[in-house]
Order: sequence, then C-alpha cells, then structure tokens
Amino acid sequence: MNKLSDLGERKAIQLISKILSKGNAAVGIGDDCAAIEFGKDYLLVTTDMISEKTHIPKIMKPWQIGWFTVAVNLSDISAKGGKPLGLVLTIGLPKNTSESFLKELMKGADECAIQFGTSIVGGDTKETHEIVISGTAFGTVKKDEFMGRKGAKSGDIIAVTGKLGKAAAGYYALKHNMGNKEILNDLLEPIPRIKEGMALAKTKIVSSSMDISDGLSSSLYQLKELNDVGFEIDKGKIPLSPVLLKFEGKKDLDIYEYALHFGGDYELLLTLPRDKFDKAQKILVKTGTPLTAIGKVTKEKKISIIDGQAKKILQNKGYEHFRKHTFC
Amino acid sequence: MNKLSDLGERKAIQLISKILSKGNAAVGIGDDCAAIEFGKDYLLVTTDMISEKTHIPKIMKPWQIGWFTVAVNLSDISAKGGKPLGLVLTIGLPKNTSESFLKELMKGADECAIQFGTSIVGGDTKETHEIVISGTAFGTVKKDEFMGRKGAKSGDIIAVTGKLGKAAAGYYALKHNMGNKEILNDLLEPIPRIKEGMALAKTKIVSSSMDISDGLSSSLYQLKELNDVGFEIDKGKIPLSPVLLKFEGKKDLDIYEYALHFGGDYELLLTLPRDKFDKAQKILVKTGTPLTAIGKVTKEKKISIIDGQAKKILQNKGYEHFRKHTFC
Repeated sequence: MNKLSDLGERKAIQLISKILSKGNAAVGIGDDCAAIEFGKDYLLVTTDMISEKTHIPKIMKPWQIGWFTVAVNLSDISAKGGKPLGLVLTIGLPKNTSESFLKELMKGADECAIQFGTSIVGGDTKETHEIVISGTAFGTVKKDEFMGRKGAKSGDIIAVTGKLGKAAAGYYALKHNMGNKEILNDLLEPIPRIKEGMALAKTKIVSSSMDISDGLSSSLYQLKELNDVGFEIDKGKIPLSPVLLKFEGKKDLDIYEYALHFGGDYELLLTLPRDKFDKAQKILVKTGTPLTAIGKVTKEKKISIIDGQAKKILQNKGYEHFRKHTFC
Repeated sequence: MNKLSDLGERKAIQLISKILSKGNAAVGIGDDCAAIEFGKDYLLVTTDMISEKTHIPKIMKPWQIGWFTVAVNLSDISAKGGKPLGLVLTIGLPKNTSESFLKELMKGADECAIQFGTSIVGGDTKETHEIVISGTAFGTVKKDEFMGRKGAKSGDIIAVTGKLGKAAAGYYALKHNMGNKEILNDLLEPIPRIKEGMALAKTKIVSSSMDISDGLSSSLYQLKELNDVGFEIDKGKIPLSPVLLKFEGKKDLDIYEYALHFGGDYELLLTLPRDKFDKAQKILVKTGTPLTAIGKVTKEKKISIIDGQAKKILQNKGYEHFRKHTFC
C-alpha cells in the first residue's frame, strides 16, 4: 500500500487533480491561485497550510507565525498580479495554548494583511494536538492582466525579483545557532511581492509567472513541464542574498546549492520577451525591488546551468513536504 | 495565564475580532460568511476546520471526511442565500497515511461540491501529526438578497428548515454501538441547504438567517445578542428527526435536550415577518424541504421555551470547541 511519504507533495497534488471533476474555474489546480471568471475580472483564490512540523521553528514567535501565514498566501496572489481582497484563517491549537499566543498570532496576521492593503475577514478556531494554521487569500485581477504559469516562450528572458537564498541563510543560521534578527528575518517574516506583481501585471508583458517559494530549481521544473520549453540559467547572474553571502566559505555550505534549491524565498519568477525586459526592470525599480535576468527560455526541453565555460543540467532538488527537512 | 481551554471557542472569536483591524468587508467576523462588495454582488467567504479530535469519529470513512468538510462550508454559504462559486481545501495528514485515504477523501469532497453545483478549485497538502482539514468556500449573492444574521424584529416568526436532532441521534447511536448507515448518515454526511437558501434569498422576506450547526439554543443566543431581541420557542413545534424519535424513552436520553442543544444539524434558522411565513413555506416545499415555525421574536430580551402551560428560560448549552464532547 502506497504511503504519502513515498508519494511526495507534488505527486499528491497530481493525484488530487486527477480525481477532481472539472469545475468552473478558468484556471484550476497547478497554478499559484485558482482563477474564476467574475465579470471582467478573475477572482483569485489560494490556500496554504502552515504546520508545526514543516514551517515553525521553535524560535518563531506567535506574531511571526501569524505574519508568515498571511504572507505566504499573499505571495501566491502577487504571482498572478492580483490585488488582494481579503483573507480567512483557520487556527488549530492545543487546548493548553495561552490566550496571549492566540492574540499575538492574530496581531501578526492582521499587521501583514494591513501592510499589503487588505484585511482578515473571517476565520475558525479548533482544538488540535499540534499547531496547524491554514490561510486562504482571495483577490482580483483584470482578465487580460492575469499572469498565469503558462505562456513562457522560447527566446523569452527568465527573471527573478529580489534576492535568492535569504530563507536558506536563515535556516543555516538557525541550525548552527547563529541566528540574529537580521539573519532570520527573511525566513520568519517574508515579504509578499504584492505591489511588484500588480505593477508587472499592468504592463501585460509577462508571459508566465509563479512564486518561487519551492526553490528556484523546483519552480523551473514546474514551468518547464507546463510550458513544454527548457531554460538556460546563468549561474553568475543569480542575485544572491547578502545574508547568504556572509556564510560564503563555510565548509558545510554551498551557497549556490542553497540559493538554487532550498526555497522559502517569496520572490517572483517571471518570463517575458527579451525586448520588454528593460521596461519591466524600470517599473520594478520604482517599487524598490530589483528585477534580475538570470537566463533564457529555450526550445530544447532541458534545464541547464552555465558556470563560466561549463554547462550542466540543473538538478531538481526542490523542497517537498512529506519528504524533506523539517523543523521538529 | 489564561488558556484557550478556559476561554471556549466563542470567546476566542470575540478576542480575535477585537484584535483585527477594520477591513473592507461589508460584513465581517460574527456572521456565517464574510461579505465583500463586488459590484452589485457580495462575495461570500467562509472557512471551517475539521480536526480528528472534534469531528472525526473512528467510524467515519475518508470519503465521508471529504464530504463533511465541503458540506459544512457550503452550509454557511447557504445561510446567506449564496450561490457557491468554489472551494479550496488544505489537508494535513500524517506521513504514514495511505494514498487511498487521500484519494477517497478527495472523491467525497468532489462529489459533495458537484452535487451542490460547485467544484474544488485548489488546495494544499501538508504533513501533520494528526488529520486536520480546512475548507474555504466562496460564493456570491446579490446585495439586496443577502440574508445576514442581523435584522430579526420583534413580532417576526422564527423558523427552521428540515428536522432537528439528526446528528445528535447519530452521536447517541455511535456511543451505544447502535449505529447503522441510516442512523449515522446525517451525522457523517450532512446536506447543506444551498437550494433552500437561494430560494429564500430571492424572496427578500427573510429578516435574519444563520446555520444551526452549533445547536438551536446556542444559535438563538447568538441571534439574541446581535439583534437585541428575545425569542419564545414552542417546544411542541420543534420538528424532531424521526431517527431521534426512535430513541424516545431511553433512560439516558432526553430527546429535547439533544434536539435543542447538541448541534451538528446543518439546517437554517430564520426570522421573517409573520404575514410572509406561508409564502416562504410554499417556496421551500418546492425544494422538498419543510419549513417549520417554532416560535416568535420578542421585544423582551429573554429566550424562553413554552411547554404546554409552563414557560421556562431556555438554557444556552451550545456546542463549543476547546471545551466539550470529542470523538477521540
């Protein structure tokens, strides 16, 4: 009998999408958000569950758990160019949890929602044995501004917002008891790219988009499968987090391994026509966020990484639940 | 230090709603759904968490867990008169869970959604120590057809759809190992009143509405608080479930206690003007569901129950998590 631990999260999702009837969603399972026709707009809906085992290091404060839950859901809205409309949260807590834990958690959730122009509109609390929090975010985007995962074309530039390896650096620091607020901040209090996503969507030049929370390599493999294309990534162009760079030279840490595979960076991965890249970059500069071209979309259905003169296949080592690193 | 076990679910929700910033929801926490302006419509959003400890008796099959999660969320949409647009689910499962468990769970969820005219449009799976499933349903209703919890007026009739005590009868049978499919069905596979809610909303005659999942007494106390009114319930008029009536005479079972307080009946509790009751009843007959007047709304802010010549205060013994009966 197959167990979920053998299956992995990606395959579990494939299994689920085979079972589900085709509904009325214009875009269903397999993108960052579901998109449902709503007049001239799409209603975007996304949901993410945060569990103690997978997401909550002991050092994480309740305020941060609340912030994190909202941020990771808003990140999916941002990847589609959406304007958030609201969030609901379900909170499962053990019965001996303190009232102040719940209060701080809700304050963190509230502050994150408010900071990104939206609010928590409802929720549910239940008694559970472990901490399990589930968030659902919804938003809207004009149909012709929707940035789906499908659409990458051979010849397009592939680009990322912000810096990579931020969360990985925090994870490394935690494991080695070197964490301080600055180092851990990106791991524990990620910033969803709402204004960046909305600004990019308005240009209508993005050919495909997803958030990079599963790690760059895993995200590229997902885009490859959906778009029937390949990618050629230039290792030297990957924008590395300054925090990660501080750990350069540590024997047990290959900074590129961390930046390419770890995940937890709530940045956007985009493809767009080569001649439109400068325009997109200028628009993002206004939001205060860099956009970096890291390679190109290829006809050949391989994902390779160029390191000086060498060209190698980029391995798919993405972060998967039911299988990999946990905090407990 | 206060613990959540001292607080109870209702107070936890009050605490949460004090913390949250006022957002853009037209109707926020405290109703069955949040309602957000969306052109001429409200977007309705509701979320419910199902945990092993509180909701999942050992006898419950994975298919039924899936059905149940979708049904309880759709019930909240039905109480506002909404047409469902879709659902998302987050599923936390232990890693040794079988693949077939997940498949069956998703089949149950899918079939319930499809049966009520909607579909599962997305979700998330995570590894947890116990089974925790969270559903979010969303739908729409025309603004002037929205049936909120506020609006009950002194003199209005108070009415319920269907029969009460169905889930309670199933719970009693389970505890005494007398469960068979017919007896347990309402507990394990509840029917959300989607078509009934939509039909009632179109009449625009309902002054307040909520689903009765927390039990009749608890629901009445919630309406009382929101509407600053009281209720006079006629005990003899409460439509008792035939399954519950089968257990009449059992020494350890007061059928009215079960029907009034247990909860788990996904019926609608409505108030409406006395002279419009017949019209509402006729409309519901067409959907195959009875509507029964069980009393009236009073100016006096008490909830009393009339039993022949006697009139007593109806106690508030509603179902609350963090405090009451569990299945584990």
